[in-house]
Amino acid sequence: MRAMEIREIKSDEFSLAWPIFRTVVEGGDTYAYNPDISFEEARALWATAPARTFIASVDGKVVGCYMLKPNQPGLGSHVANAGYMVAPDARRKGIAGRMCEHSLEVARQAGFLAMQFNFVVSNNEVAVRLWMRHGFEIVGRVPQAFRHSRLGLTDVFIMHRIL
Amino acid sequence: MRAMEIREIKSDEFSLAWPIFRTVVEGGDTYAYNPDISFEEARALWATAPARTFIASVDGKVVGCYMLKPNQPGLGSHVANAGYMVAPDARRKGIAGRMCEHSLEVARQAGFLAMQFNFVVSNNEVAVRLWMRHGFEIVGRVPQAFRHSRLGLTDVFIMHRIL
Repeated sequence: MRAMEIREIKSDEFSLAWPIFRTVVEGGDTYAYNPDISFEEARALWATAPARTFIASVDGKVVGCYMLKPNQPGLGSHVANAGYMVAPDARRKGIAGRMCEHSLEVARQAGFLAMQFNFVVSNNEVAVRLWMRHGFEIVGRVPQAFRHSRLGLTDVFIMHRIL
Repeated sequence: MRAMEIREIKSDEFSLAWPIFRTVVEGGDTYAYNPDISFEEARALWATAPARTFIASVDGKVVGCYMLKPNQPGLGSHVANAGYMVAPDARRKGIAGRMCEHSLEVARQAGFLAMQFNFVVSNNEVAVRLWMRHGFEIVGRVPQAFRHSRLGLTDVFIMHRIL
């Protein structure tokens, strides 16, 4: 793969991430967001402080995006939360893993002590294995917490790692 | 205890719940909210749709309050989330348990299929035992996710029950 650049975008650049966001969420198989979510709702969730959005590009084409934010306010704000999305035609090239490593470093620099994923769909084995390779452990399993578009009620993992 | 009434309040009645909310959050030992949270921030979290606030009263005095909302948007919205607070001078009288049973019934009527608590401070043994008596199981444990005001970094339980 040619050189990949990852950079933070401002809220008013969210249209750069939106085509991937919309496509991934429409699938209804990985994120709990409403599959019909609007641009403004997505931007509010991903690119409004304290949430920060980053995009990954190859040759100027956006191939992935991720969001980083505190998982809780106040007395839980030392734990980060992140979500990653890769364009369908750019999968299996290591982009999610590269974004994950980038987010871990950004989170460390921002002073977070750990990172937590609240909603990893249990049958998304590629994602679960990937996060484990990047140091995450499964710390919880919530039965039937996701209405998968094809598989129906599906368990969800909570994953965590110290930074 | 004399007859307790539990009723839903509107957003513009949140001042009825606020004294208890403020006192509980100020303690910094049970909720992740910023201990200095403002009235308007608290109202936005607890009493702005889709979140609903309920208060428990005895002889017209508010002794407790709780919040009920979907734990996730979209494809996770069939799982409810709730948080309960009891006035310090009204504890150990069964008020939290009564509010919990009330919330389970309201959640069922609203069509939720399960209820999840994301942030039960692990050393809050009274709460953990209480939720277990009301049918909740520990489905996850997140290490050091809470900065307890006296005990420092403390583990947090995720608890869950089917409705």
